[in-house]
Amino acid sequence: MESGRNGDSAVINMPESKAKTNGKGKAPVTFTATTKATPQPRGGSKKGIAILDFILRLFATAAAIGATATMGTADQQLPFFTQFFQFEAQYDDFEVFVFFLVTNGIVSAYLILSLPFSIVCIIRPYAAGLRLLLIILDTVIMAVTIASAAAAASVVYLAHSGNPNANWLAICQQFGDFCQATSAAVVASFITSALLMFLIVLSAFALRRN
Amino acid sequence: MESGRNGDSAVINMPESKAKTNGKGKAPVTFTATTKATPQPRGGSKKGIAILDFILRLFATAAAIGATATMGTADQQLPFFTQFFQFEAQYDDFEVFVFFLVTNGIVSAYLILSLPFSIVCIIRPYAAGLRLLLIILDTVIMAVTIASAAAAASVVYLAHSGNPNANWLAICQQFGDFCQATSAAVVASFITSALLMFLIVLSAFALRRN
Repeated sequence: MESGRNGDSAVINMPESKAKTNGKGKAPVTFTATTKATPQPRGGSKKGIAILDFILRLFATAAAIGATATMGTADQQLPFFTQFFQFEAQYDDFEVFVFFLVTNGIVSAYLILSLPFSIVCIIRPYAAGLRLLLIILDTVIMAVTIASAAAAASVVYLAHSGNPNANWLAICQQFGDFCQATSAAVVASFITSALLMFLIVLSAFALRRN
Repeated sequence: MESGRNGDSAVINMPESKAKTNGKGKAPVTFTATTKATPQPRGGSKKGIAILDFILRLFATAAAIGATATMGTADQQLPFFTQFFQFEAQYDDFEVFVFFLVTNGIVSAYLILSLPFSIVCIIRPYAAGLRLLLIILDTVIMAVTIASAAAAASVVYLAHSGNPNANWLAICQQFGDFCQATSAAVVASFITSALLMFLIVLSAFALRRN
């Protein structure tokens, strides 16, 4: 905006001196044409960033909802059971998966609520305050998403391969489908955090051009 | 910077008209006084943000080094042993703690290397490109830090309380000192990520005032 404004004032000064030197009627026409043409590409690139922001936000929302749904429905019953006990694995057998489900629910809700603000950024590309609000909230939400995804990933890893030193056995031999579902949810959550990280960098670029 | 430049040109125009109206010798003195005083508060607030950035970065470096050192020296031998086996817990018994150590080492190295750049931001508060580079790298490093901290935290939680559904027993009854050391390292790492998150928000504010 700074250099755009400098360019503007230079353009405004130039036709004035031109009008003084030749005094023709065509000078105002070229004057309006240049002032309209000069800020257009900058506003356009800002609008492009805002549209890319909206599209990436849509993908992130889809990934977050997918992660929440996959984890919430991760449930496997084994086909054999004793008189007193049926072998079943569900997401709420592990506290960290419950944490994962709650945080991904919050992240999905935030992303859906942030979509209208992203649309406002497309309509008004110079609203720096709104973009600053989005970058701060995106940073917090990205931290929450990646923390829950990493915490769940480390338990999924233990479920897959166990830990002989702590005598924790792998449970994925018995509960293969459950392990697949939770792994898929973790991957979807990591995709969400990667998209959010990209959104933060994009917003920083948009703020810089202000 | 945009409004600062506007203010500058306004200040420059004003004393010229003053000098024309009264034509005294004192006019240039007040002219230099105002041009020096007007941009100072804006440059000052930017410099203040840069100094705060440097101080927070110092604290984050200390926390990251502390986390790395605490995890690297987490080692406990039990006072009893059999003929073939001595009971010992070390950080490399758990893959996630090795991952934690490596990432926290990288984060410490990055934070130490970023300190000179932070000093450059204090000296030249209007270097927006450098600040943009710092915000992008800080975002990536913050994501890495919080991911490794969360992954380690979920294993520390399992070590503390176990998981009866997966038949994973808590090992902290036996290895109390080891658990304390790893918990402290995880807390230090979470403090690092919180400081990095604050640094990102601070950089976004500094970019906005550009």
